[in-house]
Amino acid sequence: MGAREPDPRLGYALNARLLTGIPEIAPGDPLPARLAALAAADGMEPGDVLVVAHKVVSKAEGQVVRLADVSPGVAARRLAEQTNKDPALCELILSESRAIVRQRNAVVIAETHHGFICANAGIDSSNVADGTVVLLPRDPDRSARHIQAAVAAAVGGRVGVVVTDTHGRAWRRGLINLAIGVAGFAPIIDYRGGRDREGRLLVATDQGLADEIAAAAGSLMGKAAGTPAAVVSGVDTIASPGGVGDLLRDPELDLFR
Amino acid sequence: MGAREPDPRLGYALNARLLTGIPEIAPGDPLPARLAALAAADGMEPGDVLVVAHKVVSKAEGQVVRLADVSPGVAARRLAEQTNKDPALCELILSESRAIVRQRNAVVIAETHHGFICANAGIDSSNVADGTVVLLPRDPDRSARHIQAAVAAAVGGRVGVVVTDTHGRAWRRGLINLAIGVAGFAPIIDYRGGRDREGRLLVATDQGLADEIAAAAGSLMGKAAGTPAAVVSGVDTIASPGGVGDLLRDPELDLFR
Repeated sequence: MGAREPDPRLGYALNARLLTGIPEIAPGDPLPARLAALAAADGMEPGDVLVVAHKVVSKAEGQVVRLADVSPGVAARRLAEQTNKDPALCELILSESRAIVRQRNAVVIAETHHGFICANAGIDSSNVADGTVVLLPRDPDRSARHIQAAVAAAVGGRVGVVVTDTHGRAWRRGLINLAIGVAGFAPIIDYRGGRDREGRLLVATDQGLADEIAAAAGSLMGKAAGTPAAVVSGVDTIASPGGVGDLLRDPELDLFR
Repeated sequence: MGAREPDPRLGYALNARLLTGIPEIAPGDPLPARLAALAAADGMEPGDVLVVAHKVVSKAEGQVVRLADVSPGVAARRLAEQTNKDPALCELILSESRAIVRQRNAVVIAETHHGFICANAGIDSSNVADGTVVLLPRDPDRSARHIQAAVAAAVGGRVGVVVTDTHGRAWRRGLINLAIGVAGFAPIIDYRGGRDREGRLLVATDQGLADEIAAAAGSLMGKAAGTPAAVVSGVDTIASPGGVGDLLRDPELDLFR
């Protein structure tokens, strides 16, 4: 076997490849069926994970807003003055948030209604038509489940789906791609109760697998590439309905809010 | 071309494969030369990135401490009472830290002398002989550079090296593998000043590529697997001396300390 070929032993080699052929997506686009057809044609197989950047999901679901159509209220006008942002964008940030977690100068870190903590409540103004912005999907897990069902049918077996966004982090520079919706596999692998090679009980070693898969795809998808999906093979996932909630820390246990 | 083969166009497909054949590492082990020989035999090529879990680096560099050899001081005894941890472990946490960032019950989040913010100052007590713990490498960038030089010579061209650790995150459950030492490539890709597909200037889109590569390898390396290195191919890296400092947010600009 050549050294550059993927290792067929599941769990020993990961392959992530961009899924090309996705056009500009407009509201109402049948994205799950479109992704299913492309993934099947690409050779995606049962056990693989399809990673989809949320922006195409949001666009297909109509989560695109013209700033000119937004009437900023008094709180948004105040936020706009403090941050030097567009008042209409500030209105959307506030309406998409359950809390503003931090604010300094132009930086607004919000907790979205889904529970994600990210800049500007995840509202994205790059790679969209001028004067419009893209909101996060209303329910990214539901979006992931719809895609999962379509792709699983097309490839003839269980697949995983991760809907992603690029997030900044506390303490670290650089955005990385993370899961905001998960379907078809367990987003966390819980090693607790297992034993290490010396036979000692493993504690506190739950692995954020869905986030690691999202990041792997993110290293290819990059901001500028314009290819919003990737197929990841070779990761040993555990069948599960999924649900990104498993990746969100209980606010009561979170020391950094 | 078969759908399961990596795409030869750089940047279109990522392949991460475990580097097998690494034995138990003892202090004084010539780890850079060992990794170089294994990587070359595995078919690693110029442009690839070698990801190495810090634990083998720490072990080779003698960063292993017997808790029985540690004399806990008064601050360590107080921390041990508050956290119900071993006083000797608490002494090491304090000596490895420049600050305790958060503490609640048994959870101690410290800022290490390197600037990493992580549980227990990165001290690891899994997969080591009973009664001992593993500290982080003193200078993981230097460790990465030594490995990088050896591997580059063995494969005949520039390679990247990432020394990693699994960290918990603010707001999110699940540890993910992140970079703590980088050599041979730029850990951040800065898209600022570039333009999106609509021609608008991209702002604030610096990508934490070294962390995404670390996470990709982490999805394979898992806690239980016992294989502490992986070769990552197909990521479009930029030649640079490296340095994990680029991934650490300036404390003055960090809203979450």
